[in-house]
Amino acid sequence: MREQRRFVNQMKPSEAMDQVFLVREKDLRTTKAGDRYISCVLVDRTGSVPARMWQASQAIFDSIPVEGFLHVKGHTEDYRGSLQVVIDACRPYSAEKVDLADFLPVTELDVEVMWNELLELLRPIKDRHLKLLIKKFMEDRELVAAFKKAPAAVQMHHPFIGGLLEHTLGVARAAGALLPLYPGLNADLVLAGVFLHDIGKSAELQVGTTMTYTDRGQLVGHIAIAVIWVSEKARALAEETGEPFPARTLDLLEHIILSHHGQYEFGSPKLPAVPEAIFLHHIDNLDAKMFMSLRAIANDADPDASFTAFSRELQTRIYKKSGQL
Amino acid sequence: MREQRRFVNQMKPSEAMDQVFLVREKDLRTTKAGDRYISCVLVDRTGSVPARMWQASQAIFDSIPVEGFLHVKGHTEDYRGSLQVVIDACRPYSAEKVDLADFLPVTELDVEVMWNELLELLRPIKDRHLKLLIKKFMEDRELVAAFKKAPAAVQMHHPFIGGLLEHTLGVARAAGALLPLYPGLNADLVLAGVFLHDIGKSAELQVGTTMTYTDRGQLVGHIAIAVIWVSEKARALAEETGEPFPARTLDLLEHIILSHHGQYEFGSPKLPAVPEAIFLHHIDNLDAKMFMSLRAIANDADPDASFTAFSRELQTRIYKKSGQL
Amino acid sequence: MREQRRFVNQMKPSEAMDQVFLVREKDLRTTKAGDRYISCVLVDRTGSVPARMWQASQAIFDSIPVEGFLHVKGHTEDYRGSLQVVIDACRPYSAEKVDLADFLPVTELDVEVMWNELLELLRPIKDRHLKLLIKKFMEDRELVAAFKKAPAAVQMHHPFIGGLLEHTLGVARAAGALLPLYPGLNADLVLAGVFLHDIGKSAELQVGTTMTYTDRGQLVGHIAIAVIWVSEKARALAEETGEPFPARTLDLLEHIILSHHGQYEFGSPKLPAVPEAIFLHHIDNLDAKMFMSLRAIANDADPDASFTAFSRELQTRIYKKSGQL
Amino acid sequence: MREQRRFVNQMKPSEAMDQVFLVREKDLRTTKAGDRYISCVLVDRTGSVPARMWQASQAIFDSIPVEGFLHVKGHTEDYRGSLQVVIDACRPYSAEKVDLADFLPVTELDVEVMWNELLELLRPIKDRHLKLLIKKFMEDRELVAAFKKAPAAVQMHHPFIGGLLEHTLGVARAAGALLPLYPGLNADLVLAGVFLHDIGKSAELQVGTTMTYTDRGQLVGHIAIAVIWVSEKARALAEETGEPFPARTLDLLEHIILSHHGQYEFGSPKLPAVPEAIFLHHIDNLDAKMFMSLRAIANDADPDASFTAFSRELQTRIYKKSGQL
Amino acid sequence: MREQRRFVNQMKPSEAMDQVFLVREKDLRTTKAGDRYISCVLVDRTGSVPARMWQASQAIFDSIPVEGFLHVKGHTEDYRGSLQVVIDACRPYSAEKVDLADFLPVTELDVEVMWNELLELLRPIKDRHLKLLIKKFMEDRELVAAFKKAPAAVQMHHPFIGGLLEHTLGVARAAGALLPLYPGLNADLVLAGVFLHDIGKSAELQVGTTMTYTDRGQLVGHIAIAVIWVSEKARALAEETGEPFPARTLDLLEHIILSHHGQYEFGSPKLPAVPEAIFLHHIDNLDAKMFMSLRAIANDADPDASFTAFSRELQTRIYKKSGQL
Amino acid sequence: MREQRRFVNQMKPSEAMDQVFLVREKDLRTTKAGDRYISCVLVDRTGSVPARMWQASQAIFDSIPVEGFLHVKGHTEDYRGSLQVVIDACRPYSAEKVDLADFLPVTELDVEVMWNELLELLRPIKDRHLKLLIKKFMEDRELVAAFKKAPAAVQMHHPFIGGLLEHTLGVARAAGALLPLYPGLNADLVLAGVFLHDIGKSAELQVGTTMTYTDRGQLVGHIAIAVIWVSEKARALAEETGEPFPARTLDLLEHIILSHHGQYEFGSPKLPAVPEAIFLHHIDNLDAKMFMSLRAIANDADPDASFTAFSRELQTRIYKKSGQL
Repeated sequence: MREQRRFVNQMKPSEAMDQVFLVREKDLRTTKAGDRYISCVLVDRTGSVPARMWQASQAIFDSIPVEGFLHVKGHTEDYRGSLQVVIDACRPYSAEKVDLADFLPVTELDVEVMWNELLELLRPIKDRHLKLLIKKFMEDRELVAAFKKAPAAVQMHHPFIGGLLEHTLGVARAAGALLPLYPGLNADLVLAGVFLHDIGKSAELQVGTTMTYTDRGQLVGHIAIAVIWVSEKARALAEETGEPFPARTLDLLEHIILSHHGQYEFGSPKLPAVPEAIFLHHIDNLDAKMFMSLRAIANDADPDASFTAFSRELQTRIYKKSGQL
Repeated sequence: MREQRRFVNQMKPSEAMDQVFLVREKDLRTTKAGDRYISCVLVDRTGSVPARMWQASQAIFDSIPVEGFLHVKGHTEDYRGSLQVVIDACRPYSAEKVDLADFLPVTELDVEVMWNELLELLRPIKDRHLKLLIKKFMEDRELVAAFKKAPAAVQMHHPFIGGLLEHTLGVARAAGALLPLYPGLNADLVLAGVFLHDIGKSAELQVGTTMTYTDRGQLVGHIAIAVIWVSEKARALAEETGEPFPARTLDLLEHIILSHHGQYEFGSPKLPAVPEAIFLHHIDNLDAKMFMSLRAIANDADPDASFTAFSRELQTRIYKKSGQL
Repeated sequence: MREQRRFVNQMKPSEAMDQVFLVREKDLRTTKAGDRYISCVLVDRTGSVPARMWQASQAIFDSIPVEGFLHVKGHTEDYRGSLQVVIDACRPYSAEKVDLADFLPVTELDVEVMWNELLELLRPIKDRHLKLLIKKFMEDRELVAAFKKAPAAVQMHHPFIGGLLEHTLGVARAAGALLPLYPGLNADLVLAGVFLHDIGKSAELQVGTTMTYTDRGQLVGHIAIAVIWVSEKARALAEETGEPFPARTLDLLEHIILSHHGQYEFGSPKLPAVPEAIFLHHIDNLDAKMFMSLRAIANDADPDASFTAFSRELQTRIYKKSGQL
Repeated sequence: MREQRRFVNQMKPSEAMDQVFLVREKDLRTTKAGDRYISCVLVDRTGSVPARMWQASQAIFDSIPVEGFLHVKGHTEDYRGSLQVVIDACRPYSAEKVDLADFLPVTELDVEVMWNELLELLRPIKDRHLKLLIKKFMEDRELVAAFKKAPAAVQMHHPFIGGLLEHTLGVARAAGALLPLYPGLNADLVLAGVFLHDIGKSAELQVGTTMTYTDRGQLVGHIAIAVIWVSEKARALAEETGEPFPARTLDLLEHIILSHHGQYEFGSPKLPAVPEAIFLHHIDNLDAKMFMSLRAIANDADPDASFTAFSRELQTRIYKKSGQL
Repeated sequence: MREQRRFVNQMKPSEAMDQVFLVREKDLRTTKAGDRYISCVLVDRTGSVPARMWQASQAIFDSIPVEGFLHVKGHTEDYRGSLQVVIDACRPYSAEKVDLADFLPVTELDVEVMWNELLELLRPIKDRHLKLLIKKFMEDRELVAAFKKAPAAVQMHHPFIGGLLEHTLGVARAAGALLPLYPGLNADLVLAGVFLHDIGKSAELQVGTTMTYTDRGQLVGHIAIAVIWVSEKARALAEETGEPFPARTLDLLEHIILSHHGQYEFGSPKLPAVPEAIFLHHIDNLDAKMFMSLRAIANDADPDASFTAFSRELQTRIYKKSGQL
Repeated sequence: MREQRRFVNQMKPSEAMDQVFLVREKDLRTTKAGDRYISCVLVDRTGSVPARMWQASQAIFDSIPVEGFLHVKGHTEDYRGSLQVVIDACRPYSAEKVDLADFLPVTELDVEVMWNELLELLRPIKDRHLKLLIKKFMEDRELVAAFKKAPAAVQMHHPFIGGLLEHTLGVARAAGALLPLYPGLNADLVLAGVFLHDIGKSAELQVGTTMTYTDRGQLVGHIAIAVIWVSEKARALAEETGEPFPARTLDLLEHIILSHHGQYEFGSPKLPAVPEAIFLHHIDNLDAKMFMSLRAIANDADPDASFTAFSRELQTRIYKKSGQL
C-alpha cells in the first residue's frame, strides 16, 4: 500500500481517502441536533489531522483503537482554514500489517550503514585508553541499540528514529574533514568527544508511538548522564585491565561533554576551555543548524512563499530559493 | 606569640614590626643609585603586604624561603596610599613553630563540633537507601577529610579552610529550621541534598599555602563531580547489599545537585524542577548571601564610611550601620 | 449543598449537573438551522467552563444574571477536547443563599487565626519607633481589613482571598525560624520589613467577583504605595508623639520595601544593600516559590503525568512524585 | 587671580606653577635614601593632580590643610606618563579669598536666570490642582535652595553644582518646543512631570568639597524620594484647601516620576504606561545624552584624535569632528 | 456611499449590513446536515471579519472574487465572543467604483501637503554637498513615488500607506523644534539624516492589498539599502559635478543611517557615535513611541477599560484617561 | 641579526641586551636626587617593555626617535614583578637596515602562496555572474594590496599583517572540506561569501607602526563597507557587460555579508536566514575561535600553569595540555 499512501503533509481538501492511520485520541459527541458523531485525530509520520465521523454508533466508537491503527474510507475537506477528514467507514487494522516507518518518523538512511561508517571514522583514534573506552561503550549492546534508535532531539512534530546516529555521523564526518586543517588539535580527543557528546540522549529520550523525555532525561539530562557513563565505563575498564584510566584523559573527555552546548544558557555547566572542546562545540552546532535550516525549507507548507514560516530555533524565517541563482 | 600578633589587616603606617610571616615572592633589585635591595611579599591569613629591605646582600636574599616562614623586624609605612613593610632584619623561621591557622584563613569554629552537629542534623533521614548512601559517603575517610578541610569557595583574598563544612552546616541548620514550615516537602531528600550539594568542592578546590582550583575542578566542576560520586556510591552500595539502589531516588538526588545553583548562567545544567530542589537552592543561596553581606561589613577597610566598598558578588555597596537603629 | 458540590476542576464528561454557578458572560445566538441558543460561562472558585442551552428563548436569556448566580440542571460533555456544560433548565439563585467561598478562591486557613499568629510573631520587636509604627498600621482599620482580604498576587485563574495574609505569615514564620541562625541581623528591622514589604498590595489589587489590579496599583505599584504609607504613618506618629521618627530607621525600612524584589527587572528600584534587606528578599522568594511549586503539583490536570504542565513562573515543569521515594 | 589660573585639565609638563589648590589627601613618606617627602593631591574644578614636595619637614606637612586651600609654588613634570606637580614652597590659603567656583564644578549659567526661565515654562499649566501643587513645592525654600544647588548626577570627575536645574530647564525647553507637535498629550501633566521627575536628587546627592550620595539617596533613591514628596505636598495642600487632591492626578504624576528612567534595569519600578510618561522619558533621555556626547567632545584630552576616549555611558567613543563638514 | 459605511472596527452584533468589502479568502464547506455553505473573510482598512453564507450554491461561490470587492447584504452576529457576518445575498463589485482608501489603511493627511512641508523643513541645509545629495534623491521620481506610498512599518493589522512620509515629517518637525536648543549640533547633518534614515523602507516594504516585506527587504533590510543608495547617489553626483563627494561627509551620513536604531539588538550594526546620530536616534524613537501609545488608546477595543490591551511594542498596557484630569 | 634577536616575549631578568627596538614613547625625568633619566618604551612584534637610562643627558634624549628605531645596549631586570630594560648606551638605527617583520606582527606564512591557494579554492565557482564579480574585485589592485596587508582584527597587542588573508584562506579551506558533506548548499554562494565576508576590513583597519581603526572603519564598519563595494562592483560590471547583475544573487550575497556575525549584538544587522549564510557564519566563527584558543596557549606567559590567563574573547581560561594525553 506504500506507493499509494497520501501522507498527512501532502493532503489537500476534497480528496478521497482510503488508507490506514495511527489514532491518537477519540471522542463520542452529540451535535446540536442530538445526533452522535465521533471526533478523533489521525496520525502518520508527517503529522496529524482531525477527523469526524457523522451519524456514528457507540459500537463503531468502541472499535476504534487509540494508539492503534485504523483503516479509514472517506474524504478530506477544509474546515475553518484547516484540513479535516470526514470518515465514511472505518475498521481497526493489524499493527503487523503496517510499515511502522510510515507512522513514526525515521531516518531515511540505513542505520547499519551509518553505524559502520561511524566506526570507520573513529578508527584513527590512537590513544590506547580512549580506544578501549570507546570499545567498552560499543560492547554495551543495550546502549548501542538505544543509541541507534534514539532521536537527536524531541522537536515539535518531527522527532526522528535514528536521528541521534545520523547527527553523530554528521559531526564525525565534519571532524574528519576539518581535523587536517587544524593540526594543533588532539584528534583522538575530538573523535572520542564526537562519539560520546550526545550519547546520553539514548537514555534521555524514549520512542514509543511518540517521542518524549524520560523522567531521568528531564531530571538529569543527557549531559550528566553521559558523564556518569564515561566515569562508569572508565572505572570498569580499569578494573578489567588492572591499570588505572588516566585521570587527565578522563577530565578532558568529561569536560568536552559537559561544555559541548557552548554556553551556560544552553545547559552546559562549563564553557569550552580546551581547544578540542571548542572545536567540537562548533561542528556540533554547525551540523544541527544545517539540518534545521535545510529541513525548514524542505518541509515548508507554502510552495509559493519565498521564505519559510518563522523558525523559533533559528530566530528567523529562512529563504527558500538560494539553491538556484 | 599569638596574642601579640599584628595581622596584616590590622596594620597601620608607622608601626614597629617583630613577628613571623609567610613569604609569597621575593626579588633582588638595584636602586637608581646602584644599591641592591630586596622586594618581597609578606602574607598571613588576613592578607598580604609588600615589603622592602634596603642595602640587602645576596646572602640575605638567598636565606629568605619563598612559600616558607620568615621572622621580620622593621616597621610599616605608607607608600603611595598603600602600606608597606620596611625590613631591618630577618631570618627564616621553622614551619613547626608557627600556628598555621595564623597564615591560612581558617574557620573560626571547631571542625569536629561542626561535623558532629551536621551528623545530628542528618539523623532524621528515614529513607533506608538515602541513609545508607550518606553513610557510604561518611565512611570514605579520604573524602571526609577533604570535605572538612575544603573552602566553600575560592574568593579573592579570603578563601577559608573548613568553609565548606561551615556553609554545609549553615544550610543544614536552615533546612532544620524551615522544614517544619513546609510539610509538603520530602525532608529526607532535602537533607541528603544539603549534605551532598557542594561536596564536589572537596575535589574542585585545593588548599596549600593558597587556595586554588584543581585542574579537574576547573574542567569538570563540583556539580558534575558530585553527581559522579553519588552515582558511584549508589552502585557500590547496590553491589554490597545485592539490592539495586532505587533509580527514582537517584534521579532526584542527582537533579537536586545539578540544579542547586538555580540558574543556567550560574552553571546549573538543569533548573530546579522538584520542590525539594527549589527549596535547597533558596536556602543555599540565603546562607551564602548572608555570609557575604555580613563579612563585607566586618572586613570593610574604612571605619568612617556608611557603606562598604562595592561588592561584585552582591552588585552593590552594603550599608554597615543597620545593626543599631 | 456544599458536600455534593462538583467543582469545575473536578468535572468530567457525561456527568449529570444540578447545582449553582456564578455566571461570567452570556450570549444569545442562532444555529445554522435558525434555532436560538444561549452560550454562557459558568464559574466557581476552581475555574470556569463554557455552557450551552439549546432551543432557548429570549425570556430565559434575559433571566440569566451576569456576575450573578444561576442554578443549573443539565449534563457535561466533551467538546473538541474541552469540557462544556449542556443546560437543560436554569433559574437565577439568590446571592444570599450561596457560600461565597465556593465561588471565589479563598485561603483555606482561618484569617483571624493567621492574623493573631502574625501579631504574635511581630511581638519580639523591641525598637520603640518600629513598634509604634507597626501599631499605627494595625490601628488603621480600613487598611487592615483590606490587608486581610487581599490576594498575594493576581495570577491567571488562581487569585486568592486572604492570600496576602497567608504569604505574609509564611514569611514571618520563616523569619522567626531563621533569625536565631543569623544573629548578626537586626531582628526588629527584619520583622517590621516582613509585615510591611507587601502591604501595598492591599491597594494594588481589588477583589470583586474577579481579582484585578486597581488603576493605582497598575500606575504606582505596591512597592511605591507601601513606601508612601510608611512615610505617612511615620509623619503622623511624629506629630502625635512630638518626637521625630528617626530618619535612619525610616531610610532602612523604606529601603527594605523598595528592594525586596531583589532585582531591577522584577520592579525593585533598589538592589538589597542592607543585610536585613537581603535576608527578607530571600525568605520572601522562598515562600513564594514553595507555594508555586507545591500548588503546581496539587492542581495539575493530568494525574498520569510525572511532570506538571510548564510553569511560566518557575520556567520549568515540576516533577510531581518526589513526595514518596 | 582668575585670569591667570592654569586649571588642572590645562596643565602640561614643565610649566611653572604659582597658584592656589584644594588639597584632597596628604602623606609624609621616606625615600629609599632616608629623606622625607610629602605626597599630596591637588584639586580644582577640572580635576586632580598628584604632587610631591622633596626634602620636606614635619612642620610643613602639618601646615597643609586637607580639604582646605594651599598656595603652591613649583613646576609640573611628566611622571610615568602622568602629570605631577613638584612643590618648591607652599602655604595655607584662606577659603574666604578663593573663588569657590574655581574649585567645585559649577554650571556656567546664571542660576536665577535659569530658575526664572523654568518658572516661565511651567506657567502654561492650567490644571488648578497641579498648579497649586507646584506652587507648594516652590514655596518650600529649603527644597528650592537644594534644588538649585544639586548636580544632576554624580559622575566620575565631573559633578556639577546647578546641574539639576540646568538639566530640568533643558527638559522643560524640549517639552515646550515639542508639545505643539503632539497635541494628543496632556501638556499640564508633562510640564508638572518635567519639574518633578528629578527633584528627589535634591536629597539624593550632597555637595561639599566633593559630590556624593547621601545615605538616604543610596538607600531610597531620588525616584522614591520624589514620590514621597509629591504625596506629602498633595496631602498638605488638601489640608490647607479643605479639598481633596484628585486621586487620579496624583496616580498619574507619581507614575510619571516612577517610570521616567524608562526601563526596570535603570531603576524605574514601573515602565512608562501613560503617553505623557513615555514622552517625558524620551526628552529626559535626549537631554542627558546630548549633554554627555557634547561634553565628551569638549573635554577630550587628546586634541589629535578623531574620537574621544571610550564613554562608558554611551558605550562607544564619540567622533569629535562632525561640527564642520 | 462613504458616509453610510460601517467600518469593521465599528460593527456590533445584530446590525443590518449592506455595503462593499474586500474579500481575503473563501471556502465552500458542508454542514453536518450535508448542506453547503460559504465561509469567507471580509476586509476593510480597519480590520477583517469572518462571514458565512448558508445554503450557498457553487455558482455563488464561484462569483466571489478573492482579493476583489463584494457587495454584501445580510447582518452581523456574535459567534463565540467574536463578530461574524451572515450573508443573505452578494454580488461582485467593480474596483473602479470603490474608494480604495476605505480598504487599505492610508494616512489621514494629505501626502503632497506633507511632502511640501518636509521640503520646507529641509531647506535650511547649507552644506553644498548635502544639499545636492538630497536634491539628487528628490529627483529620483520612482524612489520619491515609492517613498510617498510606503508605510513606516509592517505592523499586525495596521500598516499604513503614506506612513513613512508621515513619520519622516514628524521627525523633521521634532528636529526643527529642538535644533535651536542644541546649538552644538550640526543641523545640516541632522536634517539630511532625518530625510534619509528610513528611506530604505521604500524598497523594504511593498503595498498591494496587504503590506509585506519584499525579499530584498527581508534579506538586506532598509538600513543597508539606504546606505547603498547614499553611496550610489554620492558617486553619481561626483560624476556629474566632477568634484568628489567629501569622504568625511559620506562617512557621517552613512553612520547616522547605520546607527539610527540605537542598539545592536534592534538591527543597528553601529551604535550612535556622533552627537547628530544620537540626536536623530532619540527623536526618531520619540516620534514612533508617541504614535504607538496614542494609537493604542485610539484603537482600543474596550471602551470601559482604563487601560488598553497589552502592547508588545511598549511592553505594557497604556492608561487611556490621562487626557482629562 | 635575526638569529640572535631576543624578542620581548622571550626576555628574562638579568640578560645582557644588544639589539635594535622600535621606540614607542620617551620622557626625560628627574630622580628624587635631582638626576635626570630617560624613560621610554621599546617595542618589537612580540610586545613592549619599559626601559630606563639613568644619568641621561638632554642630547641623548633628543637623539631617540619616537616611532623610529634605536640600537640599545644594556641589560634586563625585574622591577615590581615586571621586566624592564636598563639602557647603558643607545643610538638611532636606520629603518632601512631593519627587518620590519621583526617589529610589526606579520603572518608567518607566505602571502602570495596563500593568495594563490585562495584563488584555487574559489575556482570551482560556476555561476557566471558571481565569477565575474569576484574577478572584478581581484582586478582592483589597490583593494587586493590592502586585503593582503590587512589584519583580521585589531586585538590587544597582537594585530597581524596578512591576518585577513590568512583567516579568509582558513575559512575557504574549511568550506572546501565541508561543502561535500552538505550537498544541499549552493557552493557558489558559499565560496563567494567566504571571499567577501570580511573584505571590508581592508578599509576598516590601517597598518602603520601600530594597527588601528580608520575613521570610516569606526563610523561605518567593515560589514557596511563590503556591502557597498559589492553593490558598486555589481553595478560597474553591469555597465561593462550591458547585462544587469541578477538582483536575487546580489540580495543573497549582501545578506551573507550582513549576517555573517550571526547575532545582532555582534554587529550583524540581519540574522543569517539563508542556509549558506548560516554555514558561513559557523565556519567563520570556528576558524576564529580555533586561532584564539591555540594562540592563547602558544603565547601564554607562565610555562608552569595548566591554564592560560583568562581570555576575554573566549570568556574562560584555556587548558594548555590537551595536546598530549
